[in-house]
Amino acid sequence: MRTQVGIIGAGPAGLLLSHLLHLRGIDSVVLERRGRDQIESTIRAGVLEQGTMDTLAKAGVGARMKAEGALHHGFELAFEGKRRRIDLTALTGKSITVYAQHEVLKDLVEARVAADGKLFFNVSNTSIHGIETASPSIRFEHEGEQHELHCDYVIGCDGSQGVSRAAIPAALRQDYERVFPFGWFGILVEAPPSSDELIYARHERGFALVSTRSPNVQRMYFQCDPNDAVENWSDDRIWAELHARVDSDEGHHVVEGKIFQKNIVGMRSFVSTTMQHGRLFLAGDAAHIVPPTGAKGLNLAVADVRVLSAALVAFYKESRTDLLDAYSETALRRIWRAEHFSYWMTRMMHRLDDASPFEQRLQVAELEHVTTSRAAATAMAENYVGAVAV
Amino acid sequence: MRTQVGIIGAGPAGLLLSHLLHLRGIDSVVLERRGRDQIESTIRAGVLEQGTMDTLAKAGVGARMKAEGALHHGFELAFEGKRRRIDLTALTGKSITVYAQHEVLKDLVEARVAADGKLFFNVSNTSIHGIETASPSIRFEHEGEQHELHCDYVIGCDGSQGVSRAAIPAALRQDYERVFPFGWFGILVEAPPSSDELIYARHERGFALVSTRSPNVQRMYFQCDPNDAVENWSDDRIWAELHARVDSDEGHHVVEGKIFQKNIVGMRSFVSTTMQHGRLFLAGDAAHIVPPTGAKGLNLAVADVRVLSAALVAFYKESRTDLLDAYSETALRRIWRAEHFSYWMTRMMHRLDDASPFEQRLQVAELEHVTTSRAAATAMAENYVGAVAV
Repeated sequence: MRTQVGIIGAGPAGLLLSHLLHLRGIDSVVLERRGRDQIESTIRAGVLEQGTMDTLAKAGVGARMKAEGALHHGFELAFEGKRRRIDLTALTGKSITVYAQHEVLKDLVEARVAADGKLFFNVSNTSIHGIETASPSIRFEHEGEQHELHCDYVIGCDGSQGVSRAAIPAALRQDYERVFPFGWFGILVEAPPSSDELIYARHERGFALVSTRSPNVQRMYFQCDPNDAVENWSDDRIWAELHARVDSDEGHHVVEGKIFQKNIVGMRSFVSTTMQHGRLFLAGDAAHIVPPTGAKGLNLAVADVRVLSAALVAFYKESRTDLLDAYSETALRRIWRAEHFSYWMTRMMHRLDDASPFEQRLQVAELEHVTTSRAAATAMAENYVGAVAV
Repeated sequence: MRTQVGIIGAGPAGLLLSHLLHLRGIDSVVLERRGRDQIESTIRAGVLEQGTMDTLAKAGVGARMKAEGALHHGFELAFEGKRRRIDLTALTGKSITVYAQHEVLKDLVEARVAADGKLFFNVSNTSIHGIETASPSIRFEHEGEQHELHCDYVIGCDGSQGVSRAAIPAALRQDYERVFPFGWFGILVEAPPSSDELIYARHERGFALVSTRSPNVQRMYFQCDPNDAVENWSDDRIWAELHARVDSDEGHHVVEGKIFQKNIVGMRSFVSTTMQHGRLFLAGDAAHIVPPTGAKGLNLAVADVRVLSAALVAFYKESRTDLLDAYSETALRRIWRAEHFSYWMTRMMHRLDDASPFEQRLQVAELEHVTTSRAAATAMAENYVGAVAV
């Protein structure tokens, strides 16, 4: 089997890259460990930056996002019993769309299938070969048969647990990691929205986030011990915790409903450099992870793919390799910006049991700052909408 | 002995308060543990915010500051071998004056003496009495004699080691503290300036600051172990360290000269709330300490005094106590802002041996941010010049 670009992983990065290349007449094959149903039903939050929306729309996969996604022009910061709005559009001229990641995936899969894109689900035993040569390949098993996919380039979009990153020799890689001593308890609720916009709450009991999925389904999170178990949390205990953390002295309160899903996720920051070696390039979670506080994960994957697809197009259309050579360095500028922003948001909003009372009190000083200084609010908003020059 | 306002401590806060009250016809007495020579020769750095300059000028003690101080419109950030300027005036419309704190003190002492201000140096055994009554007093010893100063209000401007803070019952106070695991090694050098403006350098070896005193005398600092001894640092070793941390790939270098003073200072953040109890009010270092990175110490003391003098004037001229009642809360808004800024600057610029490689790498991401995003640069500059609304 032969293609121009072999892509491992059918997450947002792999599918979008395949589709962008297709639109420029470049052939690719996507290999995915999971089944189509599985990737389309793994519920993940989604806050899409304007740049992400633009990229998806330009790629012809933005119609449902525009119709069903919710355009938000700001969000709320809740702290010290009050609510303060960050007006994203007034501060940056840009906005965000709340549209779940698995919906983006459905749109991308549909577009690839409609274009007769080569997309293999349920592959196993994937391995990467010859990335230091001009003719690399990917070996994999599919429906009981062994295959070898010969290609010009291998793109690793297979997440942090995938095989791609490990194919870059450890001696050439430097990994940076910070595991946070807390996690997020997430619930899905049948209820009307508690607020027109997302609410990020800082409270002495811990962080909480009130998000939305649709007019009838809401997504809420609250900081928890990452080793806790959902069984320890009755519905009543969950609502008491959310009311304590999010309700304001000004009369706002979380609207309760029927909880139909509960889960706990850990949180970490991770960056692996370099993101390229020979004919192998990494994109998305394969190279970097952010805690979800800044809503940057999906957007960073899309940004990587923008840089990488332009570099591959320059190679195939103009025989240029300069953009490919510079890929890791170019992508890492935005990645480090987003890593810093995500870390900053995380540290400002979460209960920090490892910090001194002095540092805990500084969270309030910083929240007062970003909600009263236009410059500080603008810096935050630019990061949130992804409008920082990097 | 009787006065209207009894002031403990002849630092910038105590002297300025006494002088501002005098200008409004309110009588005060200042008591100082040290001698006049000692306070006038204790060399301390001085970066004066525009608001501090304005307050001193309005009080009639700004002539020498204007003539001899150096007006700066920006400063340099040095990192990753480069130099990037923060243009304070372009970003905020304001500037700063580099004028040493002991020069401010000389001007204030001279003004108090010229106005026949009651100023006692070398007092000992100072104690505070009756602050929960309407007739408090300060007992002290001076030239072998015991005195009792009766007054309406006692103002504690006697620094973090003074007697005033301890006169507020511990049960009513909450102290917030962060001791940093590093200090500053400071030198005074006979040399021309290395740069027109201050240079704040972040380097893997540690922080460094190149400041100036006059065309012929320069002040430089570099991060060190707070428990190190100056004897361990030969001139050659000091210059090697400063060159390594500050010299840029773009050709800038530290100008060497004759080192005529060496010292090491520890660094901490500290806030004590409340800053008032009954007839006792604290101002300046008596209530809060900042690490010197943000150059906020002197400016905060002056800001406290602005709030407190206005409140005392309102009491004596209009019999109003509302401003006095709100003093601590009013002053603490600016104090927490400055504490946060000083902590942020400190964490961004210093080698953090207690942080992960990930967090160390974020310093570079944050420095890239404040030197490329106008909003982020403005937020930093507003804090530096003291122009943040609080």
